[in-house]
Amino acid sequence: MKVAVLNGPNLNLLGIREPEIYGKGSLADIERRLREVAEELNVAISFAQFNSEGDLIDAIQAQHKVADGIMINAAAYTHTSMAVADALRSVAIPYVEVHLSNIFAREPERRHSMLAAGAKAVICGFGALGYELALRGLVQTHVARG
Amino acid sequence: MKVAVLNGPNLNLLGIREPEIYGKGSLADIERRLREVAEELNVAISFAQFNSEGDLIDAIQAQHKVADGIMINAAAYTHTSMAVADALRSVAIPYVEVHLSNIFAREPERRHSMLAAGAKAVICGFGALGYELALRGLVQTHVARG
Amino acid sequence: MKVAVLNGPNLNLLGIREPEIYGKGSLADIERRLREVAEELNVAISFAQFNSEGDLIDAIQAQHKVADGIMINAAAYTHTSMAVADALRSVAIPYVEVHLSNIFAREPERRHSMLAAGAKAVICGFGALGYELALRGLVQTHVARG
Amino acid sequence: MKVAVLNGPNLNLLGIREPEIYGKGSLADIERRLREVAEELNVAISFAQFNSEGDLIDAIQAQHKVADGIMINAAAYTHTSMAVADALRSVAIPYVEVHLSNIFAREPERRHSMLAAGAKAVICGFGALGYELALRGLVQTHVARG
Amino acid sequence: MKVAVLNGPNLNLLGIREPEIYGKGSLADIERRLREVAEELNVAISFAQFNSEGDLIDAIQAQHKVADGIMINAAAYTHTSMAVADALRSVAIPYVEVHLSNIFAREPERRHSMLAAGAKAVICGFGALGYELALRGLVQTHVARG
Amino acid sequence: MKVAVLNGPNLNLLGIREPEIYGKGSLADIERRLREVAEELNVAISFAQFNSEGDLIDAIQAQHKVADGIMINAAAYTHTSMAVADALRSVAIPYVEVHLSNIFAREPERRHSMLAAGAKAVICGFGALGYELALRGLVQTHVARG
Amino acid sequence: MKVAVLNGPNLNLLGIREPEIYGKGSLADIERRLREVAEELNVAISFAQFNSEGDLIDAIQAQHKVADGIMINAAAYTHTSMAVADALRSVAIPYVEVHLSNIFAREPERRHSMLAAGAKAVICGFGALGYELALRGLVQTHVARG
Amino acid sequence: MKVAVLNGPNLNLLGIREPEIYGKGSLADIERRLREVAEELNVAISFAQFNSEGDLIDAIQAQHKVADGIMINAAAYTHTSMAVADALRSVAIPYVEVHLSNIFAREPERRHSMLAAGAKAVICGFGALGYELALRGLVQTHVARG
Amino acid sequence: MKVAVLNGPNLNLLGIREPEIYGKGSLADIERRLREVAEELNVAISFAQFNSEGDLIDAIQAQHKVADGIMINAAAYTHTSMAVADALRSVAIPYVEVHLSNIFAREPERRHSMLAAGAKAVICGFGALGYELALRGLVQTHVARG
Amino acid sequence: MKVAVLNGPNLNLLGIREPEIYGKGSLADIERRLREVAEELNVAISFAQFNSEGDLIDAIQAQHKVADGIMINAAAYTHTSMAVADALRSVAIPYVEVHLSNIFAREPERRHSMLAAGAKAVICGFGALGYELALRGLVQTHVARG
Amino acid sequence: MKVAVLNGPNLNLLGIREPEIYGKGSLADIERRLREVAEELNVAISFAQFNSEGDLIDAIQAQHKVADGIMINAAAYTHTSMAVADALRSVAIPYVEVHLSNIFAREPERRHSMLAAGAKAVICGFGALGYELALRGLVQTHVARG
Amino acid sequence: MKVAVLNGPNLNLLGIREPEIYGKGSLADIERRLREVAEELNVAISFAQFNSEGDLIDAIQAQHKVADGIMINAAAYTHTSMAVADALRSVAIPYVEVHLSNIFAREPERRHSMLAAGAKAVICGFGALGYELALRGLVQTHVARG
Repeated sequence: MKVAVLNGPNLNLLGIREPEIYGKGSLADIERRLREVAEELNVAISFAQFNSEGDLIDAIQAQHKVADGIMINAAAYTHTSMAVADALRSVAIPYVEVHLSNIFAREPERRHSMLAAGAKAVICGFGALGYELALRGLVQTHVARG
Repeated sequence: MKVAVLNGPNLNLLGIREPEIYGKGSLADIERRLREVAEELNVAISFAQFNSEGDLIDAIQAQHKVADGIMINAAAYTHTSMAVADALRSVAIPYVEVHLSNIFAREPERRHSMLAAGAKAVICGFGALGYELALRGLVQTHVARG
Repeated sequence: MKVAVLNGPNLNLLGIREPEIYGKGSLADIERRLREVAEELNVAISFAQFNSEGDLIDAIQAQHKVADGIMINAAAYTHTSMAVADALRSVAIPYVEVHLSNIFAREPERRHSMLAAGAKAVICGFGALGYELALRGLVQTHVARG
Repeated sequence: MKVAVLNGPNLNLLGIREPEIYGKGSLADIERRLREVAEELNVAISFAQFNSEGDLIDAIQAQHKVADGIMINAAAYTHTSMAVADALRSVAIPYVEVHLSNIFAREPERRHSMLAAGAKAVICGFGALGYELALRGLVQTHVARG
Repeated sequence: MKVAVLNGPNLNLLGIREPEIYGKGSLADIERRLREVAEELNVAISFAQFNSEGDLIDAIQAQHKVADGIMINAAAYTHTSMAVADALRSVAIPYVEVHLSNIFAREPERRHSMLAAGAKAVICGFGALGYELALRGLVQTHVARG
Repeated sequence: MKVAVLNGPNLNLLGIREPEIYGKGSLADIERRLREVAEELNVAISFAQFNSEGDLIDAIQAQHKVADGIMINAAAYTHTSMAVADALRSVAIPYVEVHLSNIFAREPERRHSMLAAGAKAVICGFGALGYELALRGLVQTHVARG
Repeated sequence: MKVAVLNGPNLNLLGIREPEIYGKGSLADIERRLREVAEELNVAISFAQFNSEGDLIDAIQAQHKVADGIMINAAAYTHTSMAVADALRSVAIPYVEVHLSNIFAREPERRHSMLAAGAKAVICGFGALGYELALRGLVQTHVARG
Repeated sequence: MKVAVLNGPNLNLLGIREPEIYGKGSLADIERRLREVAEELNVAISFAQFNSEGDLIDAIQAQHKVADGIMINAAAYTHTSMAVADALRSVAIPYVEVHLSNIFAREPERRHSMLAAGAKAVICGFGALGYELALRGLVQTHVARG
Repeated sequence: MKVAVLNGPNLNLLGIREPEIYGKGSLADIERRLREVAEELNVAISFAQFNSEGDLIDAIQAQHKVADGIMINAAAYTHTSMAVADALRSVAIPYVEVHLSNIFAREPERRHSMLAAGAKAVICGFGALGYELALRGLVQTHVARG
Repeated sequence: MKVAVLNGPNLNLLGIREPEIYGKGSLADIERRLREVAEELNVAISFAQFNSEGDLIDAIQAQHKVADGIMINAAAYTHTSMAVADALRSVAIPYVEVHLSNIFAREPERRHSMLAAGAKAVICGFGALGYELALRGLVQTHVARG
Repeated sequence: MKVAVLNGPNLNLLGIREPEIYGKGSLADIERRLREVAEELNVAISFAQFNSEGDLIDAIQAQHKVADGIMINAAAYTHTSMAVADALRSVAIPYVEVHLSNIFAREPERRHSMLAAGAKAVICGFGALGYELALRGLVQTHVARG
Repeated sequence: MKVAVLNGPNLNLLGIREPEIYGKGSLADIERRLREVAEELNVAISFAQFNSEGDLIDAIQAQHKVADGIMINAAAYTHTSMAVADALRSVAIPYVEVHLSNIFAREPERRHSMLAAGAKAVICGFGALGYELALRGLVQTHVARG
């Protein structure tokens, strides 16, 4: 099984950006831990981050006939990008939406996700741990379906 | 560590009720699997279901100074009960909100949760598996904090 | 054919409560008349009233594999209870929604029903007579389908 | 007792138009059955259909000092015509609003009726049977009022 | 100078319809009094009433190159008919909107006029007298401009 | 009969202020013409203008048991002052609301009047002529009632 | 192939009505040009205009089992008539909605079409040319499907 | 004079629950102080708390022909329960709504009360003292009316 | 302890203005009774009324370092004046908002207070008695804090 | 005459992406057919697709003083990108907006176009054929204006 | 060049009022510094503050044919006074709107300005420095235009 | 001190694009003048423009630990990009938002800024001069703080 983990704008600043909300760990820390879990679960993962909406869309499209599942933390594009939502629908790969913070406890404009309606599942509020749980969930679902 | 798993109205009909949305497994199936995971993680869990809003509030209040974490799938009360939200806030125990279906892909009145703003984390769309992931997340967070 | 007639909160005060809106007859009067009609139509009916939302849900669930039709006047829960609506959907029995007053000629918050979208039919404004008409409608529909 | 049964636009296409929503029976079938019931109840009925809003208004006005009750299925004008609502109010005859389908289970723009606030009662979702129930209701109410 | 006085649906019932709102005088009374004022002011008037939206539109179109001013009380079409508004704009004749009652003191759906934005002026609340004032205003404005 | 004509903020700049909307005549011109009409109709009028909301309220209160009718052009306070509306209701004198321009053809925030719901009648769009028509209307209504 | 071209209220005034929006050509000009294109494409067309909503509905119904396609410019009824939308749905003939002006660049109340949701396609902003394009589109689609 | 003091969900946790909002005193403290005031004022009071909406409704209904006044702090049900509002209206006893905190300075969903429209009076923000003031107000009003 | 009692526009007409809503007593009656209570409680009060928003703001500012508490019934300015709200916040003196009528049972535009969010407490619906209760509440709170 | 045909995000997946909505043909098929029509009409066309909003803006800007007309199917950016709309306005070249599906029959968030207000014309619902019709329309308009 | 600097309600409390928002400097400090800048720029300024809306309007009107530019910090009237906006439009002098705090980072009701639409420019968030920048901007614009 | 001046999409067309709104000067003109001012103030500035949202985000991130202040005119992204707002918050450098036109006097969708809530200050409506004023303000604030 192959899983693509795609991260949106400003997540490259993790650890620097508002650590009281997003925690002190960097995106590299998350990637490292997730690769360990992936190995344990015997799945191949790719891991990338994009500031540009177009680049993120290209990356989603590139998973077509490649990945069996997508994990996406689209950051701010979660709330504003119909094009990212379209890309996810176009490639027709099951995806899980992940957020570090509990977006429902934040400012009103961050409580609505344009991606959630098409998602397999949504996990938010568990910080970096959410990535791990999402991967476990995605893999178990894949096995059950497979 | 002690975790209370609380379920809201009509979840006792799981397997009977709209199986194309909620799956064919019963609530007893979920409980059985969750107890296995709890054993593996070495945590004690209680598991209960309530049709009455008042009974659910009593059950939440009863966790005060008893449970270290709550997992709640409040079903329809998720969307209408400020009293359940108040009870959760009153006992001040970290709780994770779980939903079988992806509530963001459903009817508009099911897309807003009155409980989410106070939750530690939210997981939805993974079906029965979501309970397991929520428990793992709650335990790991507890350990990390502990 | 078996029909369950379920009444919501405060309807036990009928005849006492705002008689200029709901009429002077009591709920017992309605039950008595309805039992006569049921006899005429050769159907068995049960008849009950509940102030608690949880009790009403239990009563609906208890009809599963028991009743062939439900007549429900959920009173105030009509407008606020997604859990009652879920219960009705869960048991998958055809139901008719009845209201004594014409809810569309009343205050704005009484003009929206959370139950109506799943109902077979809706009758309102005929006072106690509405129960009788609903029963006739339910029986004839049952016969036609049967 | 005299009752006018007035039908709005496109109902002349009944049986042709979206039969999965409105059923296969024609408007003539409804009229035939209703005349039988009227005979049984010993009331005189008139029965007509109009595509034009102005013609429907004329027909309503013509009942002034003629009919003792009106049954109206205004179809699409239910939702858009304040002029039909005014006409009904102007002639001050008790009227029952009838709809073949359960309008509350349909598209949002069909869930609001401009006529309902002034109606004696509303019946919807019983198909052709709703006409019969409405007539029985109207007659019994008339007798009771005496 | 020629003025067309056009009246909308249900105004033919004036005196019968809700006299506590619209007064006891009939539309014929209004016409009679208005013809006296017209004679005094030396203008020719036509006076008509229509229940059908299409007929009212035809009547407005017929004023093209005929009338120098229009007085319109479109009754319920005031609030729902964009087609009447279009007709008035199409013929490009200055018009005054008249209402017997003060529409701003009535139900919310009667407080918005689709015709007012294109009108020369609006008069409401003076009952039948409003027609006379509107005529005086229209004539004086015509003279001043002329 | 005594009529108080009360004008709101910035109307003292009439003729200077946006003449393409409000015309070139000054408020003094309007007063002069209105006094002629008042003489013809044999009524006594007072005429005043106020920039301060508090002064306008004082002036309205001062009419208590003094004036038989009020004509008010409250200018911008029309749209924002509940206190002016309260003052008019408190003194319980019939009042007519006058506007030089057709407020319904202007910016959205000028289309809602806080005074209109309590007014006897409303006239707008006739420019200075509207004052004269309002006075005629007020006097005739007074005579009819008187 | 047979195509009915149906035009709504006030379009008979084309060339007279607001030529800066709708152009100087008359409806007869449009019909003449369209008949030439129809001849070229070898399709039979009928062409009519209606001010009355009821007449337009009658005309739509008359196409049942007659026309293979409908082109409709419902003018103001586009935005207000659910009855016209129902008629189009009832006869179940593919239809293209045409507007002379770009309705999306106009006043807010002209930006919503009640007919568009059921339409095969929508063309607006090309003036009279839009009729021709719509016909070409309708014919090619018919051929492709045929 | 007899007064029933009824408290809604989670108020049994007073002193434990968010003390920075609700203060450190318990509900028992409030009851004790209120009984002293009641003795001073020579009125009999009952005092109770309910987590279940249905139990609260039963308690309200039980006051019918028993209590002369009701003081109610319905907590979260204030904002969501039409059934509690109906119960209060049904028994037709004057009631005062009390809140410990100033609900108008809190989260938006706590600023609207479903009970306030039918209340005799509302007091909020005075903490426990508000119960005492409400009782004094209720008694004095009763005496004045009595 | 010193308390300033400030009253807003049109309250000088108390007893004259809509007595069915505001009662028959005058503002002088309220002041007299309040001075008795103040004497009993041993506090000094000032008492004033203002029609002008600017005068009310001046009066609030004048309390800076003078009064220990403010009681304010801002009447219509309650609902429209951000400047009065700013003045109250600027002087940073605890204030209680008082209304004679239950503002929550009145017209929609009177249900929102711009002052309430900053208030210590709100009392409404007790008529003149509300002033007395507010004073008692303010004094007891002051003593408890003091 | 030169026409630039610009396509937005995810259109490169045409044929793969939700074929029940967008059809089975690829974007290359559309380009091929459009080049044939362009040859027939004797116009030069360029044809390109962009996933990135910034790249699409660059492409629009590059048409300044180059193209005589633009055809744009901005896909998801249609509904969210004010920057694309600004770019089109900046270069001041007439453009036609094309959509494969009838956007008015789709989800609410796809019914509003940020580009339409500035467009010459809009065509939607004709699938790939819409490109051809748009080109014909653009060319004929250009010639007529020529 | 002459510039009038006009300040709205409660700004006389600057330095006292919420210094964490508005800073510690007084209005006199702002005036002193601004007079230095004015001298440097060789412009004459007047500087005043008003608590009453009517006085502020009088002050604006008094600039007619006197000032070449206005700088206005209308404080709370910014958000509620259409009359101040009308006054500014009436005198037709270019004006710059200044706010000490960044109003866009504050409570929702302070984010909308009724004056901004007619302003030459808006500066906010620079504290007292904003006055100086506004003056420089106004003078340079005047010179450039002059 | 170092200041980064960042410009958003389509600003490279300045002078070409809608000069009646944005003026005739080019972005190069603005840069030239701003460099003169920067020299006078003794600050180092960088100056850049981006059509792509992702490039703009990259440029903002690149200022982390580089610039002491940012001036940003994000053009259309001002109103739609939460990702740009996040980037500005992430780097935690004080920034001033600048707009050439007074955005509050424009179309509704341009009146809301997603960046303003986090900005130090906002200047709009002064055209190119606004850049200069913003720089002066940023430098003086820096000095005062420094």
